[in-house]
Amino acid sequence: MSEQIFIGVDLGGTTVKVGVCNPQGELIYRLEGPTDTAGGTEVVLENIAKYTRQAVQESGREWNDVAGIGAGIAGFVDIAEGFVKLSPNLPLSNTPVKKILEEKLGKTVTIDNDANVAALGEAWAGAGKGVANCVVYTLGTGVGGGIIIRGGLYQGFKGLAGELGHIAVVPDLEAIQCNCGQKGCLETVSSATGIVRMAVDAVERGDLSSLSGVEKMTAKAVFDAAKLGDEVALRIVNRAAFYLAKSMTAVAVIMNPQRFIIGGGVSAAGDILFNPIRENFTKLAPEPARDGVDIVPAILGNDAGMIGAAGLNLR
Amino acid sequence: MSEQIFIGVDLGGTTVKVGVCNPQGELIYRLEGPTDTAGGTEVVLENIAKYTRQAVQESGREWNDVAGIGAGIAGFVDIAEGFVKLSPNLPLSNTPVKKILEEKLGKTVTIDNDANVAALGEAWAGAGKGVANCVVYTLGTGVGGGIIIRGGLYQGFKGLAGELGHIAVVPDLEAIQCNCGQKGCLETVSSATGIVRMAVDAVERGDLSSLSGVEKMTAKAVFDAAKLGDEVALRIVNRAAFYLAKSMTAVAVIMNPQRFIIGGGVSAAGDILFNPIRENFTKLAPEPARDGVDIVPAILGNDAGMIGAAGLNLR
Repeated sequence: MSEQIFIGVDLGGTTVKVGVCNPQGELIYRLEGPTDTAGGTEVVLENIAKYTRQAVQESGREWNDVAGIGAGIAGFVDIAEGFVKLSPNLPLSNTPVKKILEEKLGKTVTIDNDANVAALGEAWAGAGKGVANCVVYTLGTGVGGGIIIRGGLYQGFKGLAGELGHIAVVPDLEAIQCNCGQKGCLETVSSATGIVRMAVDAVERGDLSSLSGVEKMTAKAVFDAAKLGDEVALRIVNRAAFYLAKSMTAVAVIMNPQRFIIGGGVSAAGDILFNPIRENFTKLAPEPARDGVDIVPAILGNDAGMIGAAGLNLR
Repeated sequence: MSEQIFIGVDLGGTTVKVGVCNPQGELIYRLEGPTDTAGGTEVVLENIAKYTRQAVQESGREWNDVAGIGAGIAGFVDIAEGFVKLSPNLPLSNTPVKKILEEKLGKTVTIDNDANVAALGEAWAGAGKGVANCVVYTLGTGVGGGIIIRGGLYQGFKGLAGELGHIAVVPDLEAIQCNCGQKGCLETVSSATGIVRMAVDAVERGDLSSLSGVEKMTAKAVFDAAKLGDEVALRIVNRAAFYLAKSMTAVAVIMNPQRFIIGGGVSAAGDILFNPIRENFTKLAPEPARDGVDIVPAILGNDAGMIGAAGLNLR
């Protein structure tokens, strides 16, 4: 029998990316096509099926070797039922996606939330390769996360495990409102949105900073200014890093993971972000809970979602 | 073949308790005997073996039906190796306890830390029965914990998962030093020690309270005063409950357990403690992370350790 292959679908609002992976999580073929959300539910699902068949064919492998197909979807997903409850940017709300794709493709299909899937990809075949227990932070518009236990995604009671952006870390007197309804969540300070907000606030109140010359504020502009020694930018970066590290100390004493992986757009900042994260984690975590624990950047970039989706059917 | 039985040993500094459990975690026979720590390592281990054989015999079951023997030991335990690294109150430091007991008894022996084992007992056969994912807090001299995932104990990278007493919850300006080297840990406020400290502080600084008449301060005295409406005692109880709930919100967004179980001596306080815990958790946790989640008292009391030790060999 030939080697099994695992198909991963990263379903975005514009593009569907399909990856063909071997059992080690290596991408052996990839293909992209338009999602065509304007076509509606049936068109989007048929596109996924079409690109999947095409990817397998072009990869030179056999359809019989497909061990399973996984898809990562932005939105609220009932994983056990394979049902998309709500997907703001795709015409898939209230759709039994797993069932429809299984009928179209004749293979086991597993769907999950896109943040979970990206975390699984990094853990399986990226920065967490070979590590049984790791925790992935994704720093983007918000702060997402994923918990990997014994190599698999840990979902919790209702699939909400790994909502790391909503660990309350900011003291009450400095806490601002979070979209989740609470105050002081990690996401309010350590996401791109949080970093931009702090920078805009600083400029508006007249802090002396090179940031005041920035036309459209971005997290990248803040990191760039910090790298050039701008003190206001440095303070913002250090604040984002401090609270991220503080949340990690909670994760460390609760779950004792071996590795923290930090991905998402913000993580591209490099040492200027990772150094204060590591320093604060070392300072704030009880010694036994940080013994042998490391903090590393994600390495798969945008491929993490596709590879992680493939990994959903690994066992 | 007869029903399998599982033996659990709760090894204390004074007494060894041995329980014989059926596969549902029900205690079908129990026996106690002196530990005799003065006799040294060999005597203590021989006593465990002797009581274990005796308990099985007196239970009316066959030695052949023993599926495994588990032991909970206070101290630092290398679970994978079955090796006790440090046990302050028992002559077992640096001892390969698993190996020695297996030689004596000819059965699989699994050892673990006593707090983990008590958590497993509650989850398996107590307040967590039938719940796949639960988190157990043990409020005693310190605050311990245990994480149960899919019915089994989750140990983490180095066996340190569930160190819930060291979640940092108290804001810096009010935080005091914890034994772990950090500040503001849950244990500094929500343990019996923390509650007694707050009460002693209140009396010493002259707060008007019935507690000023208490000769030897205990957590129970504080709860009793709170039940009678003493405002100082109520404030202390509410502070302990608030920070406990705050730590639970972190656990909820990280792990999304279905149930929190609260045990240990302090949990005997009942509604005066559980009501503010539940109120604060509802107030502080994002809605999705608390949807369907409950907070219940432990029910096995001192038997949890014995039963949980028996459960160590369940799979």
